[in-house]
Amino acid sequence: MPYIPLESHLPGITGLLEYRQDTAQPIRELTQILLRGESTLTEGERELIATLVSFKNQCKFCTSAHTSAANILLGESETCEMVKQDFESAPVSGKMKALLAIAALVQQNGKNVNAESIMRAKNVGATDREIHDTVLIAALFCLYNKYVDGLASVTPAEPAFYERLGQRITTNGYNRVPAIYEQLKKEAHS
Amino acid sequence: MPYIPLESHLPGITGLLEYRQDTAQPIRELTQILLRGESTLTEGERELIATLVSFKNQCKFCTSAHTSAANILLGESETCEMVKQDFESAPVSGKMKALLAIAALVQQNGKNVNAESIMRAKNVGATDREIHDTVLIAALFCLYNKYVDGLASVTPAEPAFYERLGQRITTNGYNRVPAIYEQLKKEAHS
Repeated sequence: MPYIPLESHLPGITGLLEYRQDTAQPIRELTQILLRGESTLTEGERELIATLVSFKNQCKFCTSAHTSAANILLGESETCEMVKQDFESAPVSGKMKALLAIAALVQQNGKNVNAESIMRAKNVGATDREIHDTVLIAALFCLYNKYVDGLASVTPAEPAFYERLGQRITTNGYNRVPAIYEQLKKEAHS
Repeated sequence: MPYIPLESHLPGITGLLEYRQDTAQPIRELTQILLRGESTLTEGERELIATLVSFKNQCKFCTSAHTSAANILLGESETCEMVKQDFESAPVSGKMKALLAIAALVQQNGKNVNAESIMRAKNVGATDREIHDTVLIAALFCLYNKYVDGLASVTPAEPAFYERLGQRITTNGYNRVPAIYEQLKKEAHS
């Protein structure tokens, strides 16, 4: 049961973003720019960063949603699973391992990022912009995880829910699509 | 020394917001709506939430900046100091104590907010919207703290810097004021 009244057909972050749409708009925009905007990191790589941080924060809703998005973008589910369990042995580039290591430190506390972790990333070709974006994506998903869990929004148990959500955020991105909300409302009341 | 090249006359968050202005824009907007927009919480109360979270994340830049803003808005510096040290004994309302308690739990992990802390807040008159905003302000300042410290932006030592910054964010809010940046650049190069 959420701590504030959220529409019951909109679990996790979705009901929160509808609860206060004026604050939701810049949160959506920031996510769209960071995860779908121009970048030398692929959308799949950026979803892996989001997933790892959500997993480390033990936010089940966000972990499941972004695992689904990453799996769709990567075309397989093994990589994301390994990133969550032990990213150093996951089948991703050396640069991605270094960036995931930075994201994991940001999840703990920004202060935990150290010169060695930055040097490691730069030595395997990470650009300043990639390091900046990794830190900001990690910080943004800490915001999401705390928002979703801090208000006890509902976490659906069915994998099918996250498959549909993953399809939506890989197809439409993070901007609000009013037609989707109308469809969800119709389905909930049918 | 920041981990990425930031303008040396723009310490803390200020240089980061100039480094990538497209992501800065929605971050500024979200902050402006939450901390300066219409609310049944005063601007001073909202700055106290921001300060407490930054203090608990040990982010010196954000703690000093928002302490300064809170002090200006409250007209004295004792309350904010007591909020940081032990908010339960600070001279704030019972409702604010309950909301600060929720913010402190969000800073740890969203999951740490429990039904008791929410019930306490509701019992002393906190509205759903105030609880929502407290959680989102706390989550947003975790984003800021991780962004500022994760990239090792510069933390000025002089109290005068934070007094000026506090004046700026209580007078102009969180939107970008180009004239301020031009003035700071001129001062740095003079």
